[in-house]
Amino acid sequence: MALIALLHGPNLNLLGQREPHVYGSLTLDDYVALVADAARAAGHEVEAHQTNHEGVLVDLIHSARGRCGAIIINPGAFTHYAWSLHDALAAFDGVIVEVHLSNPDAREPWRHTSVVAPVATGTIAGFGALGYRLAVQAVVDGLAAR
Amino acid sequence: MALIALLHGPNLNLLGQREPHVYGSLTLDDYVALVADAARAAGHEVEAHQTNHEGVLVDLIHSARGRCGAIIINPGAFTHYAWSLHDALAAFDGVIVEVHLSNPDAREPWRHTSVVAPVATGTIAGFGALGYRLAVQAVVDGLAAR
Amino acid sequence: MALIALLHGPNLNLLGQREPHVYGSLTLDDYVALVADAARAAGHEVEAHQTNHEGVLVDLIHSARGRCGAIIINPGAFTHYAWSLHDALAAFDGVIVEVHLSNPDAREPWRHTSVVAPVATGTIAGFGALGYRLAVQAVVDGLAAR
Amino acid sequence: MALIALLHGPNLNLLGQREPHVYGSLTLDDYVALVADAARAAGHEVEAHQTNHEGVLVDLIHSARGRCGAIIINPGAFTHYAWSLHDALAAFDGVIVEVHLSNPDAREPWRHTSVVAPVATGTIAGFGALGYRLAVQAVVDGLAAR
Amino acid sequence: MALIALLHGPNLNLLGQREPHVYGSLTLDDYVALVADAARAAGHEVEAHQTNHEGVLVDLIHSARGRCGAIIINPGAFTHYAWSLHDALAAFDGVIVEVHLSNPDAREPWRHTSVVAPVATGTIAGFGALGYRLAVQAVVDGLAAR
Amino acid sequence: MALIALLHGPNLNLLGQREPHVYGSLTLDDYVALVADAARAAGHEVEAHQTNHEGVLVDLIHSARGRCGAIIINPGAFTHYAWSLHDALAAFDGVIVEVHLSNPDAREPWRHTSVVAPVATGTIAGFGALGYRLAVQAVVDGLAAR
Amino acid sequence: MALIALLHGPNLNLLGQREPHVYGSLTLDDYVALVADAARAAGHEVEAHQTNHEGVLVDLIHSARGRCGAIIINPGAFTHYAWSLHDALAAFDGVIVEVHLSNPDAREPWRHTSVVAPVATGTIAGFGALGYRLAVQAVVDGLAAR
Amino acid sequence: MALIALLHGPNLNLLGQREPHVYGSLTLDDYVALVADAARAAGHEVEAHQTNHEGVLVDLIHSARGRCGAIIINPGAFTHYAWSLHDALAAFDGVIVEVHLSNPDAREPWRHTSVVAPVATGTIAGFGALGYRLAVQAVVDGLAAR
Amino acid sequence: MALIALLHGPNLNLLGQREPHVYGSLTLDDYVALVADAARAAGHEVEAHQTNHEGVLVDLIHSARGRCGAIIINPGAFTHYAWSLHDALAAFDGVIVEVHLSNPDAREPWRHTSVVAPVATGTIAGFGALGYRLAVQAVVDGLAAR
Amino acid sequence: MALIALLHGPNLNLLGQREPHVYGSLTLDDYVALVADAARAAGHEVEAHQTNHEGVLVDLIHSARGRCGAIIINPGAFTHYAWSLHDALAAFDGVIVEVHLSNPDAREPWRHTSVVAPVATGTIAGFGALGYRLAVQAVVDGLAAR
Amino acid sequence: MALIALLHGPNLNLLGQREPHVYGSLTLDDYVALVADAARAAGHEVEAHQTNHEGVLVDLIHSARGRCGAIIINPGAFTHYAWSLHDALAAFDGVIVEVHLSNPDAREPWRHTSVVAPVATGTIAGFGALGYRLAVQAVVDGLAAR
Amino acid sequence: MALIALLHGPNLNLLGQREPHVYGSLTLDDYVALVADAARAAGHEVEAHQTNHEGVLVDLIHSARGRCGAIIINPGAFTHYAWSLHDALAAFDGVIVEVHLSNPDAREPWRHTSVVAPVATGTIAGFGALGYRLAVQAVVDGLAAR
Repeated sequence: MALIALLHGPNLNLLGQREPHVYGSLTLDDYVALVADAARAAGHEVEAHQTNHEGVLVDLIHSARGRCGAIIINPGAFTHYAWSLHDALAAFDGVIVEVHLSNPDAREPWRHTSVVAPVATGTIAGFGALGYRLAVQAVVDGLAAR
Repeated sequence: MALIALLHGPNLNLLGQREPHVYGSLTLDDYVALVADAARAAGHEVEAHQTNHEGVLVDLIHSARGRCGAIIINPGAFTHYAWSLHDALAAFDGVIVEVHLSNPDAREPWRHTSVVAPVATGTIAGFGALGYRLAVQAVVDGLAAR
Repeated sequence: MALIALLHGPNLNLLGQREPHVYGSLTLDDYVALVADAARAAGHEVEAHQTNHEGVLVDLIHSARGRCGAIIINPGAFTHYAWSLHDALAAFDGVIVEVHLSNPDAREPWRHTSVVAPVATGTIAGFGALGYRLAVQAVVDGLAAR
Repeated sequence: MALIALLHGPNLNLLGQREPHVYGSLTLDDYVALVADAARAAGHEVEAHQTNHEGVLVDLIHSARGRCGAIIINPGAFTHYAWSLHDALAAFDGVIVEVHLSNPDAREPWRHTSVVAPVATGTIAGFGALGYRLAVQAVVDGLAAR
Repeated sequence: MALIALLHGPNLNLLGQREPHVYGSLTLDDYVALVADAARAAGHEVEAHQTNHEGVLVDLIHSARGRCGAIIINPGAFTHYAWSLHDALAAFDGVIVEVHLSNPDAREPWRHTSVVAPVATGTIAGFGALGYRLAVQAVVDGLAAR
Repeated sequence: MALIALLHGPNLNLLGQREPHVYGSLTLDDYVALVADAARAAGHEVEAHQTNHEGVLVDLIHSARGRCGAIIINPGAFTHYAWSLHDALAAFDGVIVEVHLSNPDAREPWRHTSVVAPVATGTIAGFGALGYRLAVQAVVDGLAAR
Repeated sequence: MALIALLHGPNLNLLGQREPHVYGSLTLDDYVALVADAARAAGHEVEAHQTNHEGVLVDLIHSARGRCGAIIINPGAFTHYAWSLHDALAAFDGVIVEVHLSNPDAREPWRHTSVVAPVATGTIAGFGALGYRLAVQAVVDGLAAR
Repeated sequence: MALIALLHGPNLNLLGQREPHVYGSLTLDDYVALVADAARAAGHEVEAHQTNHEGVLVDLIHSARGRCGAIIINPGAFTHYAWSLHDALAAFDGVIVEVHLSNPDAREPWRHTSVVAPVATGTIAGFGALGYRLAVQAVVDGLAAR
Repeated sequence: MALIALLHGPNLNLLGQREPHVYGSLTLDDYVALVADAARAAGHEVEAHQTNHEGVLVDLIHSARGRCGAIIINPGAFTHYAWSLHDALAAFDGVIVEVHLSNPDAREPWRHTSVVAPVATGTIAGFGALGYRLAVQAVVDGLAAR
Repeated sequence: MALIALLHGPNLNLLGQREPHVYGSLTLDDYVALVADAARAAGHEVEAHQTNHEGVLVDLIHSARGRCGAIIINPGAFTHYAWSLHDALAAFDGVIVEVHLSNPDAREPWRHTSVVAPVATGTIAGFGALGYRLAVQAVVDGLAAR
Repeated sequence: MALIALLHGPNLNLLGQREPHVYGSLTLDDYVALVADAARAAGHEVEAHQTNHEGVLVDLIHSARGRCGAIIINPGAFTHYAWSLHDALAAFDGVIVEVHLSNPDAREPWRHTSVVAPVATGTIAGFGALGYRLAVQAVVDGLAAR
Repeated sequence: MALIALLHGPNLNLLGQREPHVYGSLTLDDYVALVADAARAAGHEVEAHQTNHEGVLVDLIHSARGRCGAIIINPGAFTHYAWSLHDALAAFDGVIVEVHLSNPDAREPWRHTSVVAPVATGTIAGFGALGYRLAVQAVVDGLAAR
């Protein structure tokens, strides 16, 4: 059994309220429950955090070191410029899955760069809620392979 | 009567002390009083915050949702790279006025991009203290038009 | 009492007819009247011109030298490439307010550059008709400060 | 029967005299006659103007609004930077055909951008005099389809 | 009498089925018939091919050498990157007409470059089916001029 | 029950032989079997093709129209320049999953652009063999949601 | 004896009044007299024009064809974007001297490009009033060499 | 005697644990002790802070105003994008030394820009622990020169 | 004795016919014979293919794996964009010589990039037919060194 | 009377031999004599040097400090990249005239940048031998104005 | 005891004479004495050279190989383009310290690139004379660590 | 019989000592002997020079004019920025072969540009010592063809 940190970046606390045509109608709690259920079914526990603060995200990633076997992270807009996340994740040696509900490559040009991708195990983008279930599966599989 | 959120980003707490040839000699309190007076004269209330924390700004914008009819925001240096503000403001459906005391287009190249402009109702730049009075007027007018 | 030159660039004679979803339904005469009324209320006079000719705009700016205390200019598409306006305005030492009805930063990339901004006292963009009233107030205030 | 505005931009009054290896030996009058004849054969009238003045071109495009069913325009060097033409043509709701005698894409890099193409019905380039006959046909066909 | 090669590149076999708001509702067969009829009326024959294979297009262009007096080519997406077509067409010394149903300059940035334009006699873009009729006329005229 | 097209682009026939430190040691047959088994378990059938020919990939995508409910595609190096795939996939209206074994964003700069992403339902990258299982799950879920 | 066209572009009518630290204190009339005297001393006549209108400059260049042996041109801000001047000068086959009072390469980046240089016989920049005397000498010499 | 603020940005709390081949094996406490000892030997005191929060760094820089004679700052990844630090440091008028353990110019391209360098007294990069001792010496010397 | 694959890309079947001032007057058969003779003299055999199809080139490179000790490849226009060749050649572990008859660096800008060079043993460009003889010598030498 | 340093950069010793269609048929000695004669006529002396060594040019510029009243420099290809000349000339406080026989702006793109222009009094380009006579006149005039 | 090569590039022989507001009033001899004294105090010897010749700098770096334990280099303007220094320093395996009196990142854009930084042990910039003392300390420390 | 100039640029005197994994273990003398032997076998003589001085390389190229029938040049780092070599070689009308031991296109981006390639007869890169033997053969063949 491992602990999985599920981290959400800025504005994702508004999920279900903000631009539902882009992000869908589920709330953040729905996504967290979805991940927790899927993880628990595979014998893992989930610890979930959402923050609009880049520094808190860095703190949370640090806190996951040694305690968590994997991080599932949807960094919201931080994805595209907050390089401190890059360095924080580079110092985490478990499985790292980057998730995006929508497809950043199909939106504004400034969303086409990811500071997280180069240090993630892998990326899942564009599948909405399903993306989180896939992320759990990726984590379960990645943990088993260790 | 509506509530107007007056938000200031990093380093603007130093107004009146830092580079007065660029930013003038009024303090932040002066600007806040100026905005509050002008708003009150039009029957509105102002709630003012300054923070050097991007995450706090995002929180404040979220907190304005449903409570405030308008946001007047001077994001300071965040204007030019802090895309989380873009997404937060995109989720606010009242009037949004971006204000700059000086003219960013007449300064360093990195100040020529605004992450806020694409989601603001409008922008007022270069008029010093007057810019805030104009911003209040823009809000009053915008609220009346709703 | 001062004379204010209100200058409009190319295609703005079509206001009210062309792309009302972008530019609103008021006509150029409406905007001129709005500015003249607001100025007169503050004890100033307005002299208004619209032209589709870059050279005429330069001539008008020159003509304002010595005669006018301020220029309110909406250069239309000239905003983005007609550098002769830059040099003409640089030689005017009154108040200069750049106005745009819509928000150029939220439109095509070629509208993101302004040849006028570096030499304007300030810029007001995105507020529609209100922008002109704000511009008058900026002029009144700027003239009083001299 | 419709009226077609045939508009030529700067330096095209020199056709037949200037760089014949690039532009051919026909004069502007020849081209105008060619277009007028072809249009008349299809039951349309042509009103032709050449100007070296960007502002005059804008005026002419405005003047075509409501009076003309189509514009055939060869903007000469204005093609590559005179964005006021873009906005003027965007406000014309008839058929718009952009014509170039030579092929701009096969010449200097600054000729590879067209401010007109995004708002034209279509573009015909590189066919010399024939390009005008094709343009008339495009107009005739476009008018018939309305 | 001359033989005209009418060549279509990738995905144009789907014409009439794919994105009709962009490409219209005629099928490729309709366009071929339209070209063949127009050519035959002028005393020429048409040989039509569509392929999704860049290499086949190159082979077809080679095959036209010596046999065909002209090529009418709509290279589809190959227009924007398949430089082997550039070299193949450069080795054909008849008339070459590049045709696009829609206006590439009004679509995504990657559609703004043409590898074909520098070696084509001329380009016709944005006129839908009419573009093909104009292309035939351009060929007929070009062949007559030889 | 639906038919799923599993498409592989150039050089992926070498999987298991070429650069195993980048792509792993499984062969293409292994991946196909893995996908087929997973799909079959969910009641779907898989039709698998690998080709080094861009045109064949376009043909296969066309062939999937009407017959297949989903496409899982790993376009190999075509991902980064073969825009004909973009247009072909845009004409397919089922679920489209883009899969990459390794993480293109962590490799050479020319691998950072995807011509497929803008028209895919979503992208899964960097998870090796697991990525295919996730892709199947994405397809199953996507088909169920229709 | 030859006629020399001395052409000045936008804002140069303000010479002596505008930014004397950049442009010196002589007026345009002073420069014209200086050129006329120097030319007359060498047996030539000067015809001088200043205009803020790009189209008028093009007209004047056309008008010089056949009548004038040389053009001395200071295009002001047009130097940097008004490509119609490029084409107009390309059609003049006498001596063409581009003059700038100040050194454009030592000022803002947008002043570093010249649309005139590629078609001028030569360029003289940065010498203030002397530059005009050098230009006359260049013309005299150039005319003698024909 | 002066107070020196020693500020560390994101992820530097992990020093000694994270990527020792890049950053060495000393811990942050080691560096702080090293700086404090060296400063004390020269008669100065050190106040040390590390934070993963950009806003906290700005607050700390503000707090140093008036209290501290110098700032030694290693902004970590904030170096490359967090422009609020630029403005905060610009408002500090003591000695400012930017320190990096490794050489950013020899790493990824996004590490080649520094938002801090333009407002720092000077920069010391690439010398590991020694860099901090050099920084103290630079501060001591800079303070003595005031 | 080794087998050498001599591969030619698009349009090189036209050698001797197309643009002889650029590519010389020898035919492809002449080049093949030249290479075969030179190879045979050194005790090696040559297997030659020309194709206008990128996919066929990839297939041929795959087919050379295990069978051939070296590849001599002139990819024609594919050199500049067909990244599938890059990956195919990266999976070949014999000697790889890139040959160009003319000097791509002295031609159009789009010919200045090579997708093949990064994975080739070496490049020989600009020597016409001699380049092939040098390539054979490079192969002979490279094979001897293994 | 002043001493004028006449400095020539690399390859200009070949004048009269190399590419006469670009550089004319006069030799370097001819240009030196021309400059010396013109200077002498105005009461000045000339000291001429040509070198293919950037360092020697820097030495020569240093050597002119205090001894020479002016420098006339044609830096040849060094014009476009040898920034050490920029710093050397910036430390010379006499008149500095940059001369080019041909017009760099009308040649290859790498010739469009000048490291010398920002620190020269002025530039004269494109007038061949006459350019040197104009340079002498510029020097004479500049010296007289001191 | 080790020998330290202290190398200065172009125009640094003018230190104390040229632009003292940028570079200070000490002469090169002062800096050399300062470095020699500091080195001697630590038991090392200094060998100092200044040259305006890139080739001489390369020769000096080569000459330091095997004889010197460290190089302190201020390459002047060569810093920004003279890549031969990069390769020369890459072949020196002692300590390499790059020193700049002023802060290149706060000056013209062409001074923002360093060809030396990627192969230096570290860089010290912006501290004036102190920078040299810091450099000696860095060398002493670096030598001790070997 | 012809004389061949064999020219080596900066740092190549270190061959065999510097970075043998990149440049091999042969010394410069070995390469010179190799070239001399190969040339002599074909009846030609070789004159070899290595220099770290750009100006000396230019002098040597000039000296080869009229005396030598060919130049074999490995310009080292000068390849990428020393445009004076471009102009010097352009004035040499014999055979010019550019040689690189390693493959510049497979190294740092600043090594991807060659100032020499546009004026060389041809380029040979990546073959180590063999590259020189190929270069001799290219010269022999080139001389025979004259």
